[in-house]
Amino acid sequence: MEAAIITFDDFTDIDVFFMWDLLNRVGDPNSRVRILGESEKHASSTGVEIRRHGHISETSGCDVVLFSSGMGTRRKRTDAEFLSAFRLDSERQLIGSMCSGALLLAALGLLEGKSATTYPTVRTLLESTGVRVVEQPFVREGNIATAAGCLAAQYLAGWVIEEKFGAAKREEVLRSIQPVGEGLYFSDTEQVAGAHATRNDGAQTASAAR
Amino acid sequence: MEAAIITFDDFTDIDVFFMWDLLNRVGDPNSRVRILGESEKHASSTGVEIRRHGHISETSGCDVVLFSSGMGTRRKRTDAEFLSAFRLDSERQLIGSMCSGALLLAALGLLEGKSATTYPTVRTLLESTGVRVVEQPFVREGNIATAAGCLAAQYLAGWVIEEKFGAAKREEVLRSIQPVGEGLYFSDTEQVAGAHATRNDGAQTASAAR
Repeated sequence: MEAAIITFDDFTDIDVFFMWDLLNRVGDPNSRVRILGESEKHASSTGVEIRRHGHISETSGCDVVLFSSGMGTRRKRTDAEFLSAFRLDSERQLIGSMCSGALLLAALGLLEGKSATTYPTVRTLLESTGVRVVEQPFVREGNIATAAGCLAAQYLAGWVIEEKFGAAKREEVLRSIQPVGEGLYFSDTEQVAGAHATRNDGAQTASAAR
Repeated sequence: MEAAIITFDDFTDIDVFFMWDLLNRVGDPNSRVRILGESEKHASSTGVEIRRHGHISETSGCDVVLFSSGMGTRRKRTDAEFLSAFRLDSERQLIGSMCSGALLLAALGLLEGKSATTYPTVRTLLESTGVRVVEQPFVREGNIATAAGCLAAQYLAGWVIEEKFGAAKREEVLRSIQPVGEGLYFSDTEQVAGAHATRNDGAQTASAAR
C-alpha cells in the first residue's frame, strides 16, 4: 500500500496525526505512508510544523489518498494551483477525507451526485456545492469515503486497512488504541504488541531530508 | 493554566498530539500549552520530528505536567539526567501520564503506594516497580492520574480541563472531537465553533524559534 495524507497550512493536528498513527500501525514492510503537501513544511492551526515527505502531485501514484482537515480547507477549496496538482482516479484509488477535508473532495468534483459527511461548522458550505450532506460519522460511496468528527478517523483508517489488509488487521490496529478496560485489555498484550507505529519508508525519506 | 506535555525520542505520535490538540481547544487566552523535551527536537517512533517549546526543567513552573508515551519510555525510566531535571510537586500541580508514560511517573517516585493504569505491553514492567496496576482507562489518585489506551487521552485531558476550567468546558472540548452522529451533531455547530485548536503562546514561541 502506498498511502498519502494531504496537508496544507492551518491543518487540524489530530486529523493528520491520528490517521498517520493508525496507518503506520499496520506494520507492513511493503507499505508506505507519506504526508504530502504543496510546500516543504506546513503548520497546523496550533503552530505544529510538519515536514512533508513529498509533493501533492505524487498522489497520482498512490493507492490511498486521504485529505486532512482544518481551517486551511476554506482557502484551499478555491486555490486553483493546489487543486490542479491532483490527478485522482476513484476507479483505482481509495480516496477519503476527514471533517472539512470533504470541501476539497467536492472542489475536485469527487462528490458529484454523492452523499458525504463533514464537520458541523462547514455543513452548510459543503451543501452549497451540491453535495447531499448526511449526519453520519462515515459515508462510503464506492472508493470514495468521508468521515467527520475527529474520532471518526477510526472508521476512515479502518476502511482503508480492511480493504488493503483484511478485517483481522483492522481489528488489531483499532484495538491497540482503545482505552484499557474499554476495548483494549491486559490479556491483549500479544495481540497488540505488533501494532505500534514504527518508522516506515516515507518517514525515513523525511528524516534523511532533515 | 500553564501546561506541559513531556516528549522524548521514540514517542508515540497520537499520545502527544491528541493531548496537545485537546488542551489547545480550551481556547483560554491566559493559558498556554507547551511541549517540553530535553533536546531542541524529538522524533516519534514513525519519524515525525517535533520542536520543543522549552526544556523539561521548566515543568517546575507549570500547573499541569503530562507525560506522553512510546518506546522511548523504556530508556528514559532509567536515565538519571532526564529524571533529575524534574522538580514536581503533586500538592500544587496536576500530574498525569498516557500509556507507558506511567513508567516515568513511577521512576520519579510519584506512584509509590498508588494504583495506576498503563499500556498492556508494559503492565508487568510497571508492576515490577511496586505499583498496583489496574485494568482501567483512567486512574486518579489525588492530583496524580494515569490513563492508558490512546483514546483514554480524553479522560486525562478531560480531567485537567474540568479541574481548571469546569465541567462545561470539558463537555464542549470533548464533544468537538466525537464522531458526527455519535456524540457530535450538526445542531452542535454553535457549541463547537469555538472549540477548535488555535495557536497559543507556547506555539508562537516555537514558531519564532524556527
